[in-house]
Amino acid sequence: MNTYTVKAFGTEAADADLKELKIERREITPTDVEIEILYCGVCHSDLHTARNDWGGTKYPSVPGHEIVGKVTRVGAEVSKFKAGDLAAVGCLVDSCRTCDSCKQDLEQYCLNGFTGTYNGKDKHLGTHTFGGYAEKVVVDEHFVLKVPKNLDLAAVAPLLCAGITTWSPLRHWKVGPNSKVAVIGLGGLGHMAIKLAKGLGAEVTLFSRTPGKTEDAKALGADHVVISTDEVQMQAVKGKFDLIIDTVPYVHDVNPYVTTLNINGTIVLVGYLGGLEPILNSVPMIMGRKSVAGSVIGGIAETQELLDFCGEKGIVSEIELIKMQDINEAYERMLKSDVRYRFVIDMASLKN
Amino acid sequence: MNTYTVKAFGTEAADADLKELKIERREITPTDVEIEILYCGVCHSDLHTARNDWGGTKYPSVPGHEIVGKVTRVGAEVSKFKAGDLAAVGCLVDSCRTCDSCKQDLEQYCLNGFTGTYNGKDKHLGTHTFGGYAEKVVVDEHFVLKVPKNLDLAAVAPLLCAGITTWSPLRHWKVGPNSKVAVIGLGGLGHMAIKLAKGLGAEVTLFSRTPGKTEDAKALGADHVVISTDEVQMQAVKGKFDLIIDTVPYVHDVNPYVTTLNINGTIVLVGYLGGLEPILNSVPMIMGRKSVAGSVIGGIAETQELLDFCGEKGIVSEIELIKMQDINEAYERMLKSDVRYRFVIDMASLKN
Repeated sequence: MNTYTVKAFGTEAADADLKELKIERREITPTDVEIEILYCGVCHSDLHTARNDWGGTKYPSVPGHEIVGKVTRVGAEVSKFKAGDLAAVGCLVDSCRTCDSCKQDLEQYCLNGFTGTYNGKDKHLGTHTFGGYAEKVVVDEHFVLKVPKNLDLAAVAPLLCAGITTWSPLRHWKVGPNSKVAVIGLGGLGHMAIKLAKGLGAEVTLFSRTPGKTEDAKALGADHVVISTDEVQMQAVKGKFDLIIDTVPYVHDVNPYVTTLNINGTIVLVGYLGGLEPILNSVPMIMGRKSVAGSVIGGIAETQELLDFCGEKGIVSEIELIKMQDINEAYERMLKSDVRYRFVIDMASLKN
Repeated sequence: MNTYTVKAFGTEAADADLKELKIERREITPTDVEIEILYCGVCHSDLHTARNDWGGTKYPSVPGHEIVGKVTRVGAEVSKFKAGDLAAVGCLVDSCRTCDSCKQDLEQYCLNGFTGTYNGKDKHLGTHTFGGYAEKVVVDEHFVLKVPKNLDLAAVAPLLCAGITTWSPLRHWKVGPNSKVAVIGLGGLGHMAIKLAKGLGAEVTLFSRTPGKTEDAKALGADHVVISTDEVQMQAVKGKFDLIIDTVPYVHDVNPYVTTLNINGTIVLVGYLGGLEPILNSVPMIMGRKSVAGSVIGGIAETQELLDFCGEKGIVSEIELIKMQDINEAYERMLKSDVRYRFVIDMASLKN
């Protein structure tokens, strides 16, 4: 298969800084869309992958799966896009498209394994996939999203991961105007969860360990903030929530939150991959038909639904725009939670 | 409030055998139904309460919450029952009837606490409630169920706890002809779960630790038996089940079962109250939108629905009928899992 070279930013090793490098993109196939990348959001997964925190990173590694850009070329069979259109790509660039999950528009749960936008197995080139820290990307049109024209394009980028990761459970668990939703953690995911739950009409509460985030949370749309270390405040919301979106990315005690669920309520983990310690107590789950669940990103149709919803409601992410060359510093700041609430790379900087 | 004395079987202390004793029942109020108890099922909770295994047992303790009998008297305002009718009472004899749960026919999740059929706080007499190991019981008609006439009355008794405990999650998680259901454990609850799931049209699998139960499980309606200690068999059902009813009453590893859930599947714990050890791993939950949930018994309307369904389908429990005087021996046999699948007391024996 023919390829061509594009400028990108990535790393050759777990302990090396990201730097400019060249990668190959495939020549467009009949169903492909070529996108000039204008903005790319910076997700915690980018950092974890670049540094091989989860193992399995293939180098050179080019992260980035919150991609917004402009279509430059399309294959002969592409019907959804034409050159000049706005377009977006999220965490998935392929899946088997034949399994039960794919047939239900749940590509994120593809039973044969979806192809991640970076560090995935590239079915076309046989190598691994390269993400959005690059000039261009080539993606099958099924995995390319349409972008509402009325939104700040840079601030749209985080919708493709932080947005859909919180949108999918809000929709799956049927959040609406009569729902009481809580969000644990006010980071990239948490701030989107607040905006989206509010956009769906829910009463929204932020759980935070410290009072310092109250003003910000309310500005984002939270109706209430509960300090999770305050026993009195926690007791006051016992049995309250229909759905809790738990965005905390490290091990933490889920039990105190389970007691704040209403009968039939669900706490859904979207941030932490690992063992639930301290051990989960089944008693409040059994005595209130409560669930502890997990959820990962979202399907393609659902991501389009999210983008359309955000266009309609004027919802975007809160971002700090950076240059491509500032990515290593941005990673260090992310490790200190020093970002409100998502870094987005202005990809024009890569041309310099 | 006036009371009268009835013969019962109970215990004065955690370490004492059950023996005949006298208890007081209230005179019927305008909304009460008096029931002559014909049969009473023997639940593990009876044993745990008699022996104070969970703490909090009040003595004298008279267990029994799988009650089937005949109406002897009704209060002036009772409309559902008349003397001579068959009637049944399960685990609940009262609830606040005003909270959100009660208003939704979820008395088992009454936010003000339901009144258990035994060892509950008796709102009428101010004492604790006495269960079905007795000649008669007096219960508000709201908490009394109608019994189909076509079923073996003794074998109906276990439907009131073992039956409804498995029926409620099967209904809540919408099991039907296209569902793949698994049941963990083949005891009083497990054998009812198989019959009821099969009755609802599902494809039913029993998880068992030993091959010895295969024939019995299939006779009860299971389509398949998977030996949970056999890696090859477990691998073969990876991602298969929409709902798993976990009836195991002691601490056990839930993780291997989570991997056998289909996308969007749920494992619901109905038997084990305590900490989930070994620790639950969130990864398969997140990567397949899987839930770990709990459920306790069922509401009154749902219990009536179950009894009606069983009448229609001819479903009852598999039982071993015993005399009241054999209860201590029956408890010892239950501790050795030596019962297929539920002891039921022929209460005529109490008259001797």
